[in-house]
Amino acid sequence: MTVLLVAGNTETATIDGISAAGATPELMAQTPAADAELLAYGRPVFAPHVPVSPDGCPTPGLVTRAVRELVGFDAVTLDAGLAARTAAPAVRLGDRPGGDIRTPEPVPNAPQIFDAAAEYACGHPDTRLVVGETIPGGTTTALGVLRALGEEYGVSSSLPTNPLALKREVVAAGLDASDLAPGDLAGDPIEAVRRMGDPTLAATAGLVDGALDAGKNVTVAGGTQMLAAATLVRHRGVREEFTLATTSFVADDDTVDLDAAAADLGLDLRVSDPGFERTDHVATEHYLAGVAKEGVGMGGALHLAREANIPMADVRARLVERYDDLVGEERGGLDGA
Amino acid sequence: MTVLLVAGNTETATIDGISAAGATPELMAQTPAADAELLAYGRPVFAPHVPVSPDGCPTPGLVTRAVRELVGFDAVTLDAGLAARTAAPAVRLGDRPGGDIRTPEPVPNAPQIFDAAAEYACGHPDTRLVVGETIPGGTTTALGVLRALGEEYGVSSSLPTNPLALKREVVAAGLDASDLAPGDLAGDPIEAVRRMGDPTLAATAGLVDGALDAGKNVTVAGGTQMLAAATLVRHRGVREEFTLATTSFVADDDTVDLDAAAADLGLDLRVSDPGFERTDHVATEHYLAGVAKEGVGMGGALHLAREANIPMADVRARLVERYDDLVGEERGGLDGA
Repeated sequence: MTVLLVAGNTETATIDGISAAGATPELMAQTPAADAELLAYGRPVFAPHVPVSPDGCPTPGLVTRAVRELVGFDAVTLDAGLAARTAAPAVRLGDRPGGDIRTPEPVPNAPQIFDAAAEYACGHPDTRLVVGETIPGGTTTALGVLRALGEEYGVSSSLPTNPLALKREVVAAGLDASDLAPGDLAGDPIEAVRRMGDPTLAATAGLVDGALDAGKNVTVAGGTQMLAAATLVRHRGVREEFTLATTSFVADDDTVDLDAAAADLGLDLRVSDPGFERTDHVATEHYLAGVAKEGVGMGGALHLAREANIPMADVRARLVERYDDLVGEERGGLDGA
Repeated sequence: MTVLLVAGNTETATIDGISAAGATPELMAQTPAADAELLAYGRPVFAPHVPVSPDGCPTPGLVTRAVRELVGFDAVTLDAGLAARTAAPAVRLGDRPGGDIRTPEPVPNAPQIFDAAAEYACGHPDTRLVVGETIPGGTTTALGVLRALGEEYGVSSSLPTNPLALKREVVAAGLDASDLAPGDLAGDPIEAVRRMGDPTLAATAGLVDGALDAGKNVTVAGGTQMLAAATLVRHRGVREEFTLATTSFVADDDTVDLDAAAADLGLDLRVSDPGFERTDHVATEHYLAGVAKEGVGMGGALHLAREANIPMADVRARLVERYDDLVGEERGGLDGA
């Protein structure tokens, strides 16, 4: 079993108010490269900092790393189109970040990324693959492809108050720029990514497609971006069941009916609750307020922890330890579990 | 502890008769990318084949992989400048293969590769690093930098009969093209790589420099290419001791006095003998005839096997098993150990 982290950037993230995946717009461009380093090494190497939200919520990558240290799973980064260099060992699927979806063709290389990802997943020696993602702005591009495909699923947000009106406006402008009406690209998922998506959606859809084609057990680990990736796969006519593993923070988000969407898409839904209310620490408190919610395969990692019978209290303790080591802003560490 | 495999290409390898690291010139360009996949996954993923010499000698990467399966060490590929895509997770240090050393500037980005490698090794969380290489034509570029630095150490070969006259002719033409006399770049190792070397030499020297600077335990795993990398590091004025781990095939090669060179350079020399004479199989017989000799960290992997008290008979048995799985040319498998 290997966790594949699909990392990339999209210019869409630079739209003011779209994403909380970075303290500033400049640092947001670094977030996926830094997340990949965190997962690989437990600390940034080339990246300047551990990614945090503007309020100081640490990247969900810190949770995934904490679980990795406890469970010991293999992890590989797939570079779908990173804006910053990364010291994480990565397989290069794409050679550039995605453009703003309000342009006609934000992911011109979507077909190449999809094909390379499918070939990679098919050729990978493991029979079980778990796929996560890191891309600021990813829920907006997810909404973009869902609308292009004519699907009405909602999308979550890394912000406590989902800027849905802004996202809908950006997606409407994107459809206009691409000369599309909602649903025009139903059944044409790669074209939907090319004109309304981001590089990680092309890579994730390709990985799932290739892995299922090779008869592997597949889990997509994430929230509504993974729901969009699953939708892309279904629009290719792929019918095999696979798993969507996410966090309770996404499942509790009213902007998306996850149960209905998973049932509709034929996904085996697994929701994991890290019990963050039992830890009084800055590393966890923002999650309770609705920041971040998911990302860097957090829901999948928590699911793997449960499978390995690792108590959530151990995951929380390790997370707090890593936060204190790396971010160094101790505000307490009382664990009521 | 992590094994870092520095992978790259140089146009120098395409000179007829220089290298045995590939069955044909076209396949030779694929060798480093394939070696990296073999080390990472135990089989080729994007690469068309397991690399073999024109006579059918399997890449020493198969030995390193066999040891990895027995010892379980972490491995990361460093892409110093690959000509082919690789599915191996890799850290990108350079963006292009090296040119023919008979041109004035075969590695224009040598300073950037060196700096990125040093930064990587310094930032890596492990306190012990083992550095191997895969680059066809690498002993010729090694001879090139040694002459530019004014050092007289000999170089080994992946061919049973070392084409030394040809290498000297190529190096002489390279010095001419770079307007250099032997020794002109003594004390200027990065310039020596830029004008007479290959991308993996810049990366290896940078890794060793950065790791030693951070107080890490460093082993360079390989033959005369690693001797050249060590020489580059010494020409930067770095005096800390580190280890050179290689195979008995290199140590037994008359074209280089390894003991004298190691003593001269202040290297702790470790020679490992895999006992291939005890296995009657096509996977090992070419080594006894002097093909390949080293590469892909083979000598370092054998040294790690010894440290872990893995019997060489187990290494040989695993090598034969992998060869039969992947190359499929069984000619027998009698082990007299």
